[in-house]
Amino acid sequence: MSGNSFGKLFTVSTFGESHGIAIGGVVDGCPPGMELSEADLQGDLDRRKPGTSRYTTARREDDEVQILSGVFEGKTTGTSIGLLIKNKDQRSQDYSKIADRFRPGHADYTYQQKYGLRDYRGGGRSSARETAIRVAAGGIAKKYLKTVHGIEIIGYLSQLGPIEMALEDKDAINQNPFFCPQPDKLDALDQYMRDLKKSGDSIGAKVSVVATNMPVGLGEPVFDRLDAEIAHAMMGINAVKGVEIGDGFDVVNQKGSEHRDTLTPQGFTSNHSGGVLGGISTGQDVVVHMALKPTSSISVPGETITVDGESTEVITKGRHDPCVGIRAVPIAEAMLALVLMDHLLRHTAQNAKVTSPTPVIPGSVSE
Amino acid sequence: MSGNSFGKLFTVSTFGESHGIAIGGVVDGCPPGMELSEADLQGDLDRRKPGTSRYTTARREDDEVQILSGVFEGKTTGTSIGLLIKNKDQRSQDYSKIADRFRPGHADYTYQQKYGLRDYRGGGRSSARETAIRVAAGGIAKKYLKTVHGIEIIGYLSQLGPIEMALEDKDAINQNPFFCPQPDKLDALDQYMRDLKKSGDSIGAKVSVVATNMPVGLGEPVFDRLDAEIAHAMMGINAVKGVEIGDGFDVVNQKGSEHRDTLTPQGFTSNHSGGVLGGISTGQDVVVHMALKPTSSISVPGETITVDGESTEVITKGRHDPCVGIRAVPIAEAMLALVLMDHLLRHTAQNAKVTSPTPVIPGSVSE
Amino acid sequence: MSGNSFGKLFTVSTFGESHGIAIGGVVDGCPPGMELSEADLQGDLDRRKPGTSRYTTARREDDEVQILSGVFEGKTTGTSIGLLIKNKDQRSQDYSKIADRFRPGHADYTYQQKYGLRDYRGGGRSSARETAIRVAAGGIAKKYLKTVHGIEIIGYLSQLGPIEMALEDKDAINQNPFFCPQPDKLDALDQYMRDLKKSGDSIGAKVSVVATNMPVGLGEPVFDRLDAEIAHAMMGINAVKGVEIGDGFDVVNQKGSEHRDTLTPQGFTSNHSGGVLGGISTGQDVVVHMALKPTSSISVPGETITVDGESTEVITKGRHDPCVGIRAVPIAEAMLALVLMDHLLRHTAQNAKVTSPTPVIPGSVSE
Amino acid sequence: MSGNSFGKLFTVSTFGESHGIAIGGVVDGCPPGMELSEADLQGDLDRRKPGTSRYTTARREDDEVQILSGVFEGKTTGTSIGLLIKNKDQRSQDYSKIADRFRPGHADYTYQQKYGLRDYRGGGRSSARETAIRVAAGGIAKKYLKTVHGIEIIGYLSQLGPIEMALEDKDAINQNPFFCPQPDKLDALDQYMRDLKKSGDSIGAKVSVVATNMPVGLGEPVFDRLDAEIAHAMMGINAVKGVEIGDGFDVVNQKGSEHRDTLTPQGFTSNHSGGVLGGISTGQDVVVHMALKPTSSISVPGETITVDGESTEVITKGRHDPCVGIRAVPIAEAMLALVLMDHLLRHTAQNAKVTSPTPVIPGSVSE
Repeated sequence: MSGNSFGKLFTVSTFGESHGIAIGGVVDGCPPGMELSEADLQGDLDRRKPGTSRYTTARREDDEVQILSGVFEGKTTGTSIGLLIKNKDQRSQDYSKIADRFRPGHADYTYQQKYGLRDYRGGGRSSARETAIRVAAGGIAKKYLKTVHGIEIIGYLSQLGPIEMALEDKDAINQNPFFCPQPDKLDALDQYMRDLKKSGDSIGAKVSVVATNMPVGLGEPVFDRLDAEIAHAMMGINAVKGVEIGDGFDVVNQKGSEHRDTLTPQGFTSNHSGGVLGGISTGQDVVVHMALKPTSSISVPGETITVDGESTEVITKGRHDPCVGIRAVPIAEAMLALVLMDHLLRHTAQNAKVTSPTPVIPGSVSE
Repeated sequence: MSGNSFGKLFTVSTFGESHGIAIGGVVDGCPPGMELSEADLQGDLDRRKPGTSRYTTARREDDEVQILSGVFEGKTTGTSIGLLIKNKDQRSQDYSKIADRFRPGHADYTYQQKYGLRDYRGGGRSSARETAIRVAAGGIAKKYLKTVHGIEIIGYLSQLGPIEMALEDKDAINQNPFFCPQPDKLDALDQYMRDLKKSGDSIGAKVSVVATNMPVGLGEPVFDRLDAEIAHAMMGINAVKGVEIGDGFDVVNQKGSEHRDTLTPQGFTSNHSGGVLGGISTGQDVVVHMALKPTSSISVPGETITVDGESTEVITKGRHDPCVGIRAVPIAEAMLALVLMDHLLRHTAQNAKVTSPTPVIPGSVSE
Repeated sequence: MSGNSFGKLFTVSTFGESHGIAIGGVVDGCPPGMELSEADLQGDLDRRKPGTSRYTTARREDDEVQILSGVFEGKTTGTSIGLLIKNKDQRSQDYSKIADRFRPGHADYTYQQKYGLRDYRGGGRSSARETAIRVAAGGIAKKYLKTVHGIEIIGYLSQLGPIEMALEDKDAINQNPFFCPQPDKLDALDQYMRDLKKSGDSIGAKVSVVATNMPVGLGEPVFDRLDAEIAHAMMGINAVKGVEIGDGFDVVNQKGSEHRDTLTPQGFTSNHSGGVLGGISTGQDVVVHMALKPTSSISVPGETITVDGESTEVITKGRHDPCVGIRAVPIAEAMLALVLMDHLLRHTAQNAKVTSPTPVIPGSVSE
Repeated sequence: MSGNSFGKLFTVSTFGESHGIAIGGVVDGCPPGMELSEADLQGDLDRRKPGTSRYTTARREDDEVQILSGVFEGKTTGTSIGLLIKNKDQRSQDYSKIADRFRPGHADYTYQQKYGLRDYRGGGRSSARETAIRVAAGGIAKKYLKTVHGIEIIGYLSQLGPIEMALEDKDAINQNPFFCPQPDKLDALDQYMRDLKKSGDSIGAKVSVVATNMPVGLGEPVFDRLDAEIAHAMMGINAVKGVEIGDGFDVVNQKGSEHRDTLTPQGFTSNHSGGVLGGISTGQDVVVHMALKPTSSISVPGETITVDGESTEVITKGRHDPCVGIRAVPIAEAMLALVLMDHLLRHTAQNAKVTSPTPVIPGSVSE
């Protein structure tokens, strides 16, 4: 029970189903005194939101976030921040046909088995819609990391089906609907997606995220390692089936003399480690890759069972992303921001200097 | 700070350095009434311990675990279990030469930067020696999973450098020093390791773990997903740089119609998902793969810096595993057992039936 | 940082300031399948809400709670429940005069010192307004405890200033604005409060809460004892300065032969322990008392300092409760419900029987 | 399950029974670079240990603590600290007579009911013996609070049965076996205890703890308040039935104009609040009182039941403290130190300045 919170010192708790009244959450642990408004969060929400291109679901949501608390006269107060996004374009009737059967590859089977019932409208709580709140919460962390520490987080699509993309042009990423960092691949992507939609099928993808200007020393030993918590965060994104730090699975066939990043007085000469050694950040860029499976909501007919265990067929006619990996880019950025923010706060606790303003009056008094 | 605990309801907290007096830990949350003795844990400790073959470090440790509490008259009492393993073959003098410099690819750099000092003997807390306690704690979980629920966990080496191995013969795994499940690859492995040791270099590996006879319903939605916590657990093992569930990175180029596992009244017809959908177990086998980097402690000379930032050279002459992936097999099994045990307990809480024995007397009394 | 959550398995996270847009929270860990609607929570909210009698603050709030998620077709789904209450009668201008100075005995001094800024409108986050969400969340726990386990929780005012009240008539408690369980004290209470309001001063109180029909066995050993977490919960209510279980401070001058509750085959013959031994429930009634200080917001002038440390005077003219203890009764009930609910879930985990419905199909498949 | 840990950032996990091989624990989160040795902890352990005066149990234990990890070359490394104390004078045969029946007022009834079995030797895990590890862990916190922040913690016996004691002479506290701060009461205490032992009975007590030289700003809003966590810590000490902060239950009959502590440019003029407002430290002394019940292990015969629910009689002949409150003084100090240490670390995280040493080399590298 109770698994809807993330983070130890910078904690995000979320609620809300795809077709409920609203989704929302509580962000707890944001330091006081940072300027914050909805405008700071809306940019990433717009990058994630559905209905913005022909390559994603046709559902239309404004995803306008409201900050309900924790900000006073334009600044964070250090208390918990309430976030709310109202659902609009729900069209629940689309889903009535699948209430009595399970989509192969979808969470509706496991939710039904775990809880004995489920909100079948649009995937309910298992819907990627829930990630909008992660993006909003991550936006708060992103702003803090950027303005206080200069840390920047950049995500991009590194592969879609057979099409691989290199991080050639950071500025291009947000100029196209694929978060593609290699503009000469855009035509191929467009053609691939057109063909895919025609077939009614979906496709997997690989997403990468990089944090630059990292401090050294973030991460706790043994269990709460920085890389372990990044893996937790990324594998917790809908559809993710694999996570790599730095060279990832390429290390299986690397020699030690080849993998190790040489230290010189001028810095490291390579970054095979992906910026983490022994679970602690090295100060190099943190480099993360993840694999996202193709969505199970497709219009290709498939064999399945009813909720009573009878054999039947399923076709998903709702509005779905043919490649969920695309919209995962801002989600992955948000999750990395949440992990880094949490570890920044945790690392700070190491020396326990009391940092509150000097009291205006002395506190002590004889009893 | 404080990152040496793992698990929410079945919690393991560890302590101890490679060359200290002892390593140990506290296992909290084991249900009462299970038969338990040191003998239940020693088998896996022996599988992990160093000095048992020419393919691993020459350091010799008995790794004899002592249960200090939580067991009374042969049964667990439901209270916390103290574990202790004394260190024996420490030879700390071997490490004196590297106290003043950093090994490229090793955690000694990040520990020094994070804490301002470090126990440089054998890697201190960052040493894989710490994982012995994870194996002991995991052994308790393994026994519970097996005896109460019939869940079994099997780990094996699935790749060493260029040599890939398939899960052909489960019984063979513990009959050879490589945890190799395909006996016809043993000669190639032996030859590869001989050549490697001659060169003074090290090599990466891929380890796989499978849990069979799984119940459906383990895992919490959104953040504390079963797969997310498995990823956390595995990426928290020393040297791991990548984690996959089920088809892992292969999903990047899979179609939805190809990836989804069909449900039939007789069960699933495939297991691309690796036994987890929407973060919740499906009842299929849970299948996990991980990539382990080659150890940085090699005798191939390398450029590096001193603790003062001066350029220098390093050669690690201590006793090290040329392939840390081999001994990681029982560690990976233990970590999977810890995650499953924790989620079993968490899932049980879902219905909150009070399960204590009927009171021998009524409790209520008028005030 | 991040201290706005309560509970380990049944977790409540709250947000919202006294004069913000709204207050709200997330309740995580409610078992699936329980019937739940706003009507279940509104009763206790009405008991707590301001403006219902001349003995409490004149601020008028409907305190209408909205359930935003976690309930589908009238039943809890097992996923997180979002709660929202909009603020209405804020009149923030009342507080402008105290923005530049500290009220003696009020949290505005410590908030300003901790965070360097504060929302001074109505106490911001330190306002008792925040407790409305605790009451709503506690209402969910109360319903579960009652319907699934028959546990009932009754709170009452046991002392107001010099006037002591005994638990003579449970049915009377909710028939009067004082939550007074001894109707022949009502005239004295009315007279006392009239005199108090004339003087512009405030008064302390003692509140008691009892849980009946308790199961034996709730509570974890050593640190997470049932009584320790009850103490945490109660001391966390605004204005509480003391907490007792059972005989409380009377035990200081009791002999062992006098204090111990005799066990007989028919049950305990007394309840000095207050229903907890060694941190674990005995099955007797759980009996808790707490002391609430008089509010610091009074119109009796007082010496104080400005935010710049200069000497000045303060008079609080806002709308405040002359005895905050009265409205604390439903809050104390809610907090006890949250603790019991959490421990019920935790205790259930002890035997780790998987309680999900039998899968409709077998899960296992050869890989 | 799993309730043997305390603290969020400075975490203590304990294990061990009264008559097992050893008791021990893990202290996680101690900042690096503090000088630490066993000698720093032994003083408080000696103050708590049994067998030192005729007023406490005759059991003799050296309570010699061993630090097994986390300290290198005399300084803490920032990693987890393993603590171990071996049990010596166990004489388990003394307890064989009570294995089949419950002592009224003792935890053996609730442990048996919760777990279905118990270690009946000396109370097993419910024994106060477990608190030795809390004292050792608290000693680490105490040293940090003292050397880094100048915070001092002083505990004393403030009442024993009918005899009240005032904090007249701090230096006297550790010069007598009662931790009595008012030397002219020593004869009365001695006489009272002699009479009590003759009668075979036990008596309750009140213990007080004060933290001086406090910083302002410790404590988190709403749930994790400083006073709430102090209440949790103190109510978690064996035999405690009540906790007060500052004026405690006296506030019930105080007026607001009387209770509030006036702020002046020179400081507060009184300390009714006990150093906490709104859950956050004011900088004044933190003042805590607690009530401890008389031990249930007495030689006055009492009616009770067997483990099978049959009526019988019990006389406890083992070696027990006639007043458990006396030896609780160092335990209460330790628990207050643990809470303050945890909140010091948590408060520090507020501003998230990275405090690690400047890296010796730049971290960034182009990928």
